Amino acid sequence: MIVDKDLITQRLQALQDRICLGLEGLDKEGKFREDKWERPGGGGGRTRIITGQHIEKGGVNFSGVQGDMPEKIYKALGIGPCKFFATGVSIVLHPRNPHVPIIHMNVRYFQTDKDLWWFGGGIDLTPHYIDPKLAINFHRRLKDVCDAADPQYYPEFKKWADDYFYVKHRKETRGIGGIFFDRLNAERTTKAAGLDYILAVGDSFLPIYTEQFLPNYERAYTEQEKEWQLHRRGRYVEFNLVWDRGTKFGLDTDGNIESILMSLPPETRWTYKYQAGTREQETLDQLKKGIDWVNHTAE
Amino acid sequence: MIVDKDLITQRLQALQDRICLGLEGLDKEGKFREDKWERPGGGGGRTRIITGQHIEKGGVNFSGVQGDMPEKIYKALGIGPCKFFATGVSIVLHPRNPHVPIIHMNVRYFQTDKDLWWFGGGIDLTPHYIDPKLAINFHRRLKDVCDAADPQYYPEFKKWADDYFYVKHRKETRGIGGIFFDRLNAERTTKAAGLDYILAVGDSFLPIYTEQFLPNYERAYTEQEKEWQLHRRGRYVEFNLVWDRGTKFGLDTDGNIESILMSLPPETRWTYKYQAGTREQETLDQLKKGIDWVNHTAE
Repeated sequence: MIVDKDLITQRLQALQDRICLGLEGLDKEGKFREDKWERPGGGGGRTRIITGQHIEKGGVNFSGVQGDMPEKIYKALGIGPCKFFATGVSIVLHPRNPHVPIIHMNVRYFQTDKDLWWFGGGIDLTPHYIDPKLAINFHRRLKDVCDAADPQYYPEFKKWADDYFYVKHRKETRGIGGIFFDRLNAERTTKAAGLDYILAVGDSFLPIYTEQFLPNYERAYTEQEKEWQLHRRGRYVEFNLVWDRGTKFGLDTDGNIESILMSLPPETRWTYKYQAGTREQETLDQLKKGIDWVNHTAE
Repeated sequence: MIVDKDLITQRLQALQDRICLGLEGLDKEGKFREDKWERPGGGGGRTRIITGQHIEKGGVNFSGVQGDMPEKIYKALGIGPCKFFATGVSIVLHPRNPHVPIIHMNVRYFQTDKDLWWFGGGIDLTPHYIDPKLAINFHRRLKDVCDAADPQYYPEFKKWADDYFYVKHRKETRGIGGIFFDRLNAERTTKAAGLDYILAVGDSFLPIYTEQFLPNYERAYTEQEKEWQLHRRGRYVEFNLVWDRGTKFGLDTDGNIESILMSLPPETRWTYKYQAGTREQETLDQLKKGIDWVNHTAE
């Protein structure tokens, strides 16, 4: 079996299919609507959006694009003009219930015609209210997936996520982190093992989200809890529009706007100096880098 | 009378006072809440926020800061290390009624200890639904204020606003534009005339907004019109967080975050490929550069 861009494309499309089916199974009412799009320079994508009874707004997007590498990028890589191919699956889910976290996943593959290639990706969780037990489970499941590939991955990629998913101007992390990795290349892995790893990360998404979703999706919530959710979504917007490199790259390079911005939440709210209550403050106090969730003990 | 930074500071603080009083008069119920803040490096500000019966969220901020010029900036100006002083008044008002536009105004003064100084500012209007008559009046009033100072200002600053208040990734202007200017310095004006001009712009704010507000603040609106407003506010967020240089500068340089982000709307909404109706599409069709509103004729 040759691990080339066609195989990786097939595998990622099949991953998208599995995840969409699984999420429809969780939501019970919502169905994904698919928009196929083509990129003028080459390639295209399958944007899939759900508006469900429990998933208020979700996107599970596949894209596979190719063509001439933009000058800005090949210069940043320190190489000359070349062709590129990039493919990936990106997910963001905004739940209705404030006790269910926002989740994000991305796995991707990039190559040029000059023998350069790498994998990248990540999963991170943004609970509106942090439940320590669920936070511990989330990180342990990620560690298990990483350890099966390479025991160095989890500690390294967990730290990378802490640094990446950081809302610098608010001095708080976006949520409880997770893993983030990029430029995973021949120095660390093979194409076959790299593909296996991102598929393992991709297939960890459904069980990980299910574990976060099931205990809380029908839980009663107060008006204050809903309000808090809307304000936390505001921070999500701030991160994505101000700091997220993927979003910025898409906006700068005239990408498929509706597909890129599917990550933005449905209803959102900003209030000048919004006052957190005691339980909200408890969550805020844990939005920081360096928490060792795997070895954390929930009281 | 010597036009120095102390005089300019006094005049801008008095402008803030007049505008706050006027807006409380329009709203009838809302009162501004003031937060005084100090900047570690020198100076500070008076952030004033209103949550009213008609103005859902509004901020009228004064700041006057000084100290050592950040390296990034003096290099960009092509000069060496120096001290700077910057002062200004910034306003953003988000009305409850979707028939009342969002409005923004900013007037500012900047100087270094190396004989460099300039004025800047702007007013722009973001109607959720464009009323051609009101759009024409808005631009004519701005032209009057500009013409009294210099007949070249309006055409030049109107074009500048079209270019500046542009949501590039959506290929639409933020609203119907207005005026925007920067680096208005000794090549074009004197300190006394420059101050007069920004005060005239500042004092045009209340009559301009009143003219937009009065015909519509009590007008009935449908659920669809409210929904449209929430989605247009989403575009406002996108502009401010992705493209607005003032906001980006504030976030990059560790400014007073709550004060900088007072411009973000209260309730906001994003929907994947939100469908505009006929009347909404009419407004979208007019969100483009180069419309000559002053000579426009409303049918």
